[in-house]
Amino acid sequence: MLPQSVPASPNLSRRLAKLTSILDVAKAMSAERDLDLLLPLILYEATKVVESDRCSLFILDREREELWSKVAQGSKNEIRLPMGSGIAGQVAHTGAVINIPDAYADARFNSSFDISSGYRTHTILCVPMRDANGEVTGVIQALNKRGGQVFDEEDEELLLALGAQAAGAIENALLHEEINRLFEGFVSASVVAIEARDPSTAGHSGRVADLTVSLAQALEHRATGPYAQTRFTAVELQELRYASLLHDFGKVGVRENVLVKAEKLYPHELEALSARFQLARKDLQLQSSRRRLASVEVRGLSALPSIHQEEDARLGQELAQLDEVMGFLLTCNKPTVLAQGNFERLLELGKLTFTDAHDHGKPLLLPHEIQSLSITRGTLSPEERREIESHVDHTYRFLSQIPWTRALRRVPEIAYAHHEKLDGTGYPRAVPEIPVQSRMMSICDIYDALTASDRPYKKAVPHTLALDILKKEAGSGQLDKDLFTIFVEAEIPRRALKKSPA
Amino acid sequence: MLPQSVPASPNLSRRLAKLTSILDVAKAMSAERDLDLLLPLILYEATKVVESDRCSLFILDREREELWSKVAQGSKNEIRLPMGSGIAGQVAHTGAVINIPDAYADARFNSSFDISSGYRTHTILCVPMRDANGEVTGVIQALNKRGGQVFDEEDEELLLALGAQAAGAIENALLHEEINRLFEGFVSASVVAIEARDPSTAGHSGRVADLTVSLAQALEHRATGPYAQTRFTAVELQELRYASLLHDFGKVGVRENVLVKAEKLYPHELEALSARFQLARKDLQLQSSRRRLASVEVRGLSALPSIHQEEDARLGQELAQLDEVMGFLLTCNKPTVLAQGNFERLLELGKLTFTDAHDHGKPLLLPHEIQSLSITRGTLSPEERREIESHVDHTYRFLSQIPWTRALRRVPEIAYAHHEKLDGTGYPRAVPEIPVQSRMMSICDIYDALTASDRPYKKAVPHTLALDILKKEAGSGQLDKDLFTIFVEAEIPRRALKKSPA
Repeated sequence: MLPQSVPASPNLSRRLAKLTSILDVAKAMSAERDLDLLLPLILYEATKVVESDRCSLFILDREREELWSKVAQGSKNEIRLPMGSGIAGQVAHTGAVINIPDAYADARFNSSFDISSGYRTHTILCVPMRDANGEVTGVIQALNKRGGQVFDEEDEELLLALGAQAAGAIENALLHEEINRLFEGFVSASVVAIEARDPSTAGHSGRVADLTVSLAQALEHRATGPYAQTRFTAVELQELRYASLLHDFGKVGVRENVLVKAEKLYPHELEALSARFQLARKDLQLQSSRRRLASVEVRGLSALPSIHQEEDARLGQELAQLDEVMGFLLTCNKPTVLAQGNFERLLELGKLTFTDAHDHGKPLLLPHEIQSLSITRGTLSPEERREIESHVDHTYRFLSQIPWTRALRRVPEIAYAHHEKLDGTGYPRAVPEIPVQSRMMSICDIYDALTASDRPYKKAVPHTLALDILKKEAGSGQLDKDLFTIFVEAEIPRRALKKSPA
Repeated sequence: MLPQSVPASPNLSRRLAKLTSILDVAKAMSAERDLDLLLPLILYEATKVVESDRCSLFILDREREELWSKVAQGSKNEIRLPMGSGIAGQVAHTGAVINIPDAYADARFNSSFDISSGYRTHTILCVPMRDANGEVTGVIQALNKRGGQVFDEEDEELLLALGAQAAGAIENALLHEEINRLFEGFVSASVVAIEARDPSTAGHSGRVADLTVSLAQALEHRATGPYAQTRFTAVELQELRYASLLHDFGKVGVRENVLVKAEKLYPHELEALSARFQLARKDLQLQSSRRRLASVEVRGLSALPSIHQEEDARLGQELAQLDEVMGFLLTCNKPTVLAQGNFERLLELGKLTFTDAHDHGKPLLLPHEIQSLSITRGTLSPEERREIESHVDHTYRFLSQIPWTRALRRVPEIAYAHHEKLDGTGYPRAVPEIPVQSRMMSICDIYDALTASDRPYKKAVPHTLALDILKKEAGSGQLDKDLFTIFVEAEIPRRALKKSPA
């Protein structure tokens, strides 16, 4: 702490100016929440205020009883020192200023850094940084007062004052970093948890985020074309990243069986269909047996062998027909593209009936089964497709509930449009006005859906084929042609996913 | 901005002391991230530094072009002023200091506040607060210089310097508040999204959080007993809140059909069972028909009427038996407590067979059906119970992935133990050492599960009955008896949920 009353001296006005400048520095520091920028700022100002050659700053890690330094001017790696060791460690431990006028004459000085770096240390001023509770949170060390002088009491006072302000700014920056990491970690972990419901899409959202941000960054290098002026700030990239990471969050509102549907009928639907065919089979046997009895009544017992022969043949044929129909339905059930003839036959088969266990005539194939088996592409019925597509609405509703900061306020809107198409054929709103961020995300989303590992209803597609498919969609006016060109030219998949073109 | 060089003056050392004290204040302000504490601190220091009677502070809301004040000394409500209006509004608009030596002689002064409050304003100093980019972010206004003096240039300079530091601290506090709100909002929204998968538990997590935090706060008032010394800080309450809010997050890893299982067999399992009974029914008809034919062969056509009579009677009996078995199984399928006799009969029924559509002998009741229908309580098989219980492990794994801040680092551990019992009969670890936070959460979790709206497998229980059930569990050494006493005495449900004892 500085004394509240300072005696008048001829240097008073110089000190006043310096304290005033520390106030300006304090303000600049408190506005800088990025530690990687804050620490160099502190060192720059510290070097200036005590007129030294260079400064370094150590932050105290109380849990590990270590000092660490993210930035030491002229050094790039993180340094860690045990608390109490060396001059910085001692200052951190005792909280007392160390001012050394001649390093090589002082036993506390360790010349090994000089030896390894080729630097020559003459004078050292090392002061503690204290938080608002007076606890030491780190140290600032200034080396080599300019003009061959030694550090004086005024330097001590000024460096202490600067350090006190720096301590608060560092604490704020660390806290800011901590909360951001917490938020980011929570978002990522919940995306992973939700994706785990559909194992075939695991990791999709993270990859789409990497691809989309990478594509946005690639716009930086465009000097021509419609995106020559489009640039994203760091916080806009963050906004885009959250929108991409969370674009499928609404899938939590889609039932699992729909999400992972592998065939046109669900397993239990196929089981019910198959049980009905067994019942029909048994019914054919029963009808045949009843006919035999009735024939015997008419034609007499002596006709029994020929009745059996006739009925065995007829039953054999009927059962073979039933088996053939079942085989046909099993073929229709696969997620392949349905031939036109099959569709008509399914409608025809809808007229088949059998007699159930209570002797009621029943359709062999139910309308909803015909509808499901008639799906012309993929495995989803129109209702199921709508349910899957509803994930975009769920995502939007979810994201809209969240009190995004001003800088991130467009996250819901960007995610909302990721299935829209430029020709207005997308969903859920079918609007052609799509934010550029969503247009980028669309390309990356489709690319990853195509190339990611096999899904229950389709095989993974190789990189070049995926690009061909995207190219076709861009050509037909659904995807943004210029963004797709950048996606290809900047080799976004290789850059973002380390995916080798295959 | 202050000039970098200040001319020497007789007041120099006093100004130096004041600037030094502003540095100390700057440090204290930067450490205060709670806006409700920061604003009074700024006002206190501002009042002191310019030796005024009182100060007020307005923050600029650029979007709404308004100034707002959370604290005006002597006033409790939030005040909002249009930008440009009044003295504060003008300073915010122009960025220029306004220093009024005689308020009532100045046209800009609005005496309505004086009139309504009975206060008498003489002198006014109003200065802008600027952020690190020089943008005005608010104003500080000092009223009535002490000793009947007027505010001078030095006051302007000092209040500007203080305001500059205050601007940074306020910005940090607002940002801190913003990110916390974002995190909190994201957590709440994802809990809601995950709970929506099981509509019968909607809102459960939020209520458990409210109950548990309320119970923790109630410990404050205990002067005796084992919890007389237990107190939770604000950040510990926050930790407890997150743990409670997220205790069931792992349910995202449990399949929906298990989560919402209403009977012992799933609908599709019951459908398959029922289809098998229809097949068996048809088979009985077929066997009967075949026997008729065989009897005719032996006894001759003339015996046919009596054969039909005998067989109709036999078939009728067989079908009635089959129907009775099916009726029994439907009874077993309900989520009621199973009588001992039923269990033995189910095992017996496992021996029944029928001939399937391909003339193979098949069991009428499958082992997994017998197992499910034999569930003695509720609707879940042991495997399903384990799957439901696994939500605690999922929750723990999920929470452990998140980089909690140091202050919140016990969230995973607290949530992990919410199904443990003090007698070691809980899950997943079956350990009797349970953090007090988890012990509180257990009581609140069970209370809400009992009293919340009907679930598919059980009816909601009234408040007093729920307390009786909890009391029994406390008495048997599963729940913490003392915490339960506080839960009852402090009327936690009424306090936290506005639930009236019924």
